Amino acid sequence: MRNVISIRVQNVPGVLSHVAGLLAARGYNVDSLTVGATEDPTISRMTIVLDVAKDMADQVCSQLQKLVTVVETKNLSYVPRVERELALICVATPKGTRSEVVELTNIFRAGIVDVGIDSVMIEISGSGDKLDAFIKALRPYRILSMTRSGCIASERPQDPAVEVEDKK
Amino acid sequence: MRNVISIRVQNVPGVLSHVAGLLAARGYNVDSLTVGATEDPTISRMTIVLDVAKDMADQVCSQLQKLVTVVETKNLSYVPRVERELALICVATPKGTRSEVVELTNIFRAGIVDVGIDSVMIEISGSGDKLDAFIKALRPYRILSMTRSGCIASERPQDPAVEVEDKK
Repeated sequence: MRNVISIRVQNVPGVLSHVAGLLAARGYNVDSLTVGATEDPTISRMTIVLDVAKDMADQVCSQLQKLVTVVETKNLSYVPRVERELALICVATPKGTRSEVVELTNIFRAGIVDVGIDSVMIEISGSGDKLDAFIKALRPYRILSMTRSGCIASERPQDPAVEVEDKK
Repeated sequence: MRNVISIRVQNVPGVLSHVAGLLAARGYNVDSLTVGATEDPTISRMTIVLDVAKDMADQVCSQLQKLVTVVETKNLSYVPRVERELALICVATPKGTRSEVVELTNIFRAGIVDVGIDSVMIEISGSGDKLDAFIKALRPYRILSMTRSGCIASERPQDPAVEVEDKK
């Protein structure tokens, strides 16, 4: 099962090593991980996606919580949340295929951020499923390189909240 | 100096721990780190942002390259590249302030992904500077929570390439 774990950690050297060490010691392969700044400069937020059973994920959460550098741990898989991911995808566009790739980019409400003589670079953000579908659609055009940010997630602040239709 | 290091690693348990352990052993604080899938399912890509001198960053690169699970290391700071970052920001919108926040969101070409009774959640992607400017502009409205993905970067495929004006 896919578990999205969001933890707030102290912004100090070594904290990533503590968390990664704990996950490695248990032999979990991390699907994706991001660390970025938060509204508080002394605190960073990590979003970890793990493909394990629920009770295993709860165990990971309680073990992470025991680390001195970890401030707060939350498994977001069981609460209303918004998930987003970002990707930069470089696609080959030999003679005559660029307009097809541009068309696909528009359909998925992605954006072209760089144009070369026979390639384009596309930026897309959305749910993991949307990114997967876009990548599948691009496959016939040869993907030269791809960088995905991994999932970031945020709990919905309260109910009743309405998720707005995917805007792009 | 800000160094953006992009590494391709084997998609196996423990690889994150190797990389984080190496960075921690040297006492570097990582500004941001992301791990995500690539076009090849056996390979993941990490983007690491480190604030160190150039020669130190080169040393880190050559040490990372020695790890068995690391396939390729590249410091993107000295090549033409595209950098992007994603953020989910939850902002309080007590009575009468929502339209101001929506206006700001439109100015920065961000998008509202969730609406609560007295808060909204905003998704924004762009360069780190753009995100910083947006967060600064939102500060007067009280930021309830913020999740940033950390920087992802991709080398421009070739010259002459033209970076398209920030599309949103």
